[in-house]
Amino acid sequence: MRAITLAIASVFAAAAPAAADYMVKEVGSFHVGGRTETLSGLPTKEIVFSPGAPPIKVDPNGEFEVEQMYVQYVKLAQPKGRVPLLLWHGGGLSGVTWETKPDGKPGWQQFFLNAGYDTYVSDAVERGRASWARYPEIFKGEPFFRAKKEAWELFRIGPAYEVGGKRETFEGQQFPVEAFDQFGKQGIPRWATNDAATQKAYDALVQKVCPCIIVVHSQGGNFGFTAALNAPDKVKALIAVEPSGAPDPEKVEAAKVKGVPHLIVWGDNIDKHAVWPRIAANPIKWAQAIASAGGKVDTFDLPKMGIKGNTHMLMMDKNSDDIAKLVNEWIGKQGLVN
Amino acid sequence: MRAITLAIASVFAAAAPAAADYMVKEVGSFHVGGRTETLSGLPTKEIVFSPGAPPIKVDPNGEFEVEQMYVQYVKLAQPKGRVPLLLWHGGGLSGVTWETKPDGKPGWQQFFLNAGYDTYVSDAVERGRASWARYPEIFKGEPFFRAKKEAWELFRIGPAYEVGGKRETFEGQQFPVEAFDQFGKQGIPRWATNDAATQKAYDALVQKVCPCIIVVHSQGGNFGFTAALNAPDKVKALIAVEPSGAPDPEKVEAAKVKGVPHLIVWGDNIDKHAVWPRIAANPIKWAQAIASAGGKVDTFDLPKMGIKGNTHMLMMDKNSDDIAKLVNEWIGKQGLVN
Repeated sequence: MRAITLAIASVFAAAAPAAADYMVKEVGSFHVGGRTETLSGLPTKEIVFSPGAPPIKVDPNGEFEVEQMYVQYVKLAQPKGRVPLLLWHGGGLSGVTWETKPDGKPGWQQFFLNAGYDTYVSDAVERGRASWARYPEIFKGEPFFRAKKEAWELFRIGPAYEVGGKRETFEGQQFPVEAFDQFGKQGIPRWATNDAATQKAYDALVQKVCPCIIVVHSQGGNFGFTAALNAPDKVKALIAVEPSGAPDPEKVEAAKVKGVPHLIVWGDNIDKHAVWPRIAANPIKWAQAIASAGGKVDTFDLPKMGIKGNTHMLMMDKNSDDIAKLVNEWIGKQGLVN
Repeated sequence: MRAITLAIASVFAAAAPAAADYMVKEVGSFHVGGRTETLSGLPTKEIVFSPGAPPIKVDPNGEFEVEQMYVQYVKLAQPKGRVPLLLWHGGGLSGVTWETKPDGKPGWQQFFLNAGYDTYVSDAVERGRASWARYPEIFKGEPFFRAKKEAWELFRIGPAYEVGGKRETFEGQQFPVEAFDQFGKQGIPRWATNDAATQKAYDALVQKVCPCIIVVHSQGGNFGFTAALNAPDKVKALIAVEPSGAPDPEKVEAAKVKGVPHLIVWGDNIDKHAVWPRIAANPIKWAQAIASAGGKVDTFDLPKMGIKGNTHMLMMDKNSDDIAKLVNEWIGKQGLVN
């Protein structure tokens, strides 16, 4: 009996994961969507490849793949979530939004993997590993770059950021300000002219991997709301974290998504910001239209729930796990977890 | 006894992974390196954010984080590799090189995870999730975009690619040509002026996560050889897959890396290409210099070993696992696997 007991003990010792360990079936990635574009008639350019070397002639013409998006998945051996969780970032950012936080602590991807969901973290058209195309020939217009001052103020970390000087925070705000420069490294140039191509790629992703739950942030809000409209049978729940836009219920029939449970999550200090009350107005209006059509829409207005100080980047805030837990419980209530 | 036997069986059933499953401790990411750049005095631009909307004034000035790189890791609960494996991509590409192959089959990241290594897959400065900076104010020069014809011919899939027409392959070549357009979606614009910043970020990565094994591809070759020179105590082995450059042994002392085992891997059809014999010459010369200094350098010249038809992108070729197995055995011989 002693030998058997020891054998059992050693099986447990080898097999039992630590609290945070999980069995993975596959880590993988793919590009989805996009099209081939052919450039011709552009003049040859001289490019200096290495400092001091003679210039080399480069022909910019030819065929290129453009407007695809990048998706990376982690599939668990035994997921608890009945469908995978897709995580869509906001404007001027990439899928890194959902990974390890700028302060080095686990982000929402890690939280939801530990909670038992297959996760799909993507980079939208034009950003990160999705790549970007020559402009103005393919992408129209030009890219723009978000300065740290804009990120600080627009993302409601605080009311004022002085270049090279004082960074003023909102009282009790939750962003790990010591990691703000690290967060600045996550910024990605953006275009204002790629919305249609981005929606098309997201819709292709939904067709490829759903049924699913979609979590969207900020600019991803409108893409997520629209993806649900375009495939209400495939989107089993939509969680919009601080969405910055939404369809107009006077132009689009909200009843189409009445079978898709929606959750909207808002952080703190919206009323203290010059622009945010106006940004939030459209998603609030869209949520009301879905509810009026007989759909299910819940709202987590965090400060009203007693959770104070959350910024626009609440998945990176110090209490990000607390909010993820609330979201996870809400998903559970939709019958989407085994 | 029957109850105990059943108990043991159920423990095994719950714990035993499928052949490809593995226990993960953490999936995470970070940015490393980089610096703050301040732009001032640039004129405000008018940008149309949505088609038909009035232009909005955007101030391009301010503080930006630039020249960082992105690194994503998968840490195993019980790695067999004594040190992690870092995977560095080539020019005009990103870390996607090492992930799922364009034909949807598992790539080298997956192979080495299954073989028991912690993996760190990165995007170098200017590419993918590392992001890029405004030019010509911060990045000097301008980006260029690789057309599919150049990729087909330079990567030795075949001798000729006609735009919109016939794609001629080398006889018996191993690239999954039906997935070539999918591969085209992985391309990332590049600059010719960021070598110093890229090396600096790679060196910072080595200081942060090594001791390690580094696997480099193509343009990554020179960055990897130089990283080993800059930290020979931290780099326990360097595997250069089709390196496109190397330090000059007349300028740099190869003896510095005589304690770092090097492996160089070459695909097929180099002699049939106009440029590749010249590209390969410098890495071959560097390898000879390390050997002459008493260092350990092995070369896998695949066609000489009877493995035919491999392209420059051999980690995506149909026989990629066979080559990974050879590399893994070589690592084992360096005493780096438990």
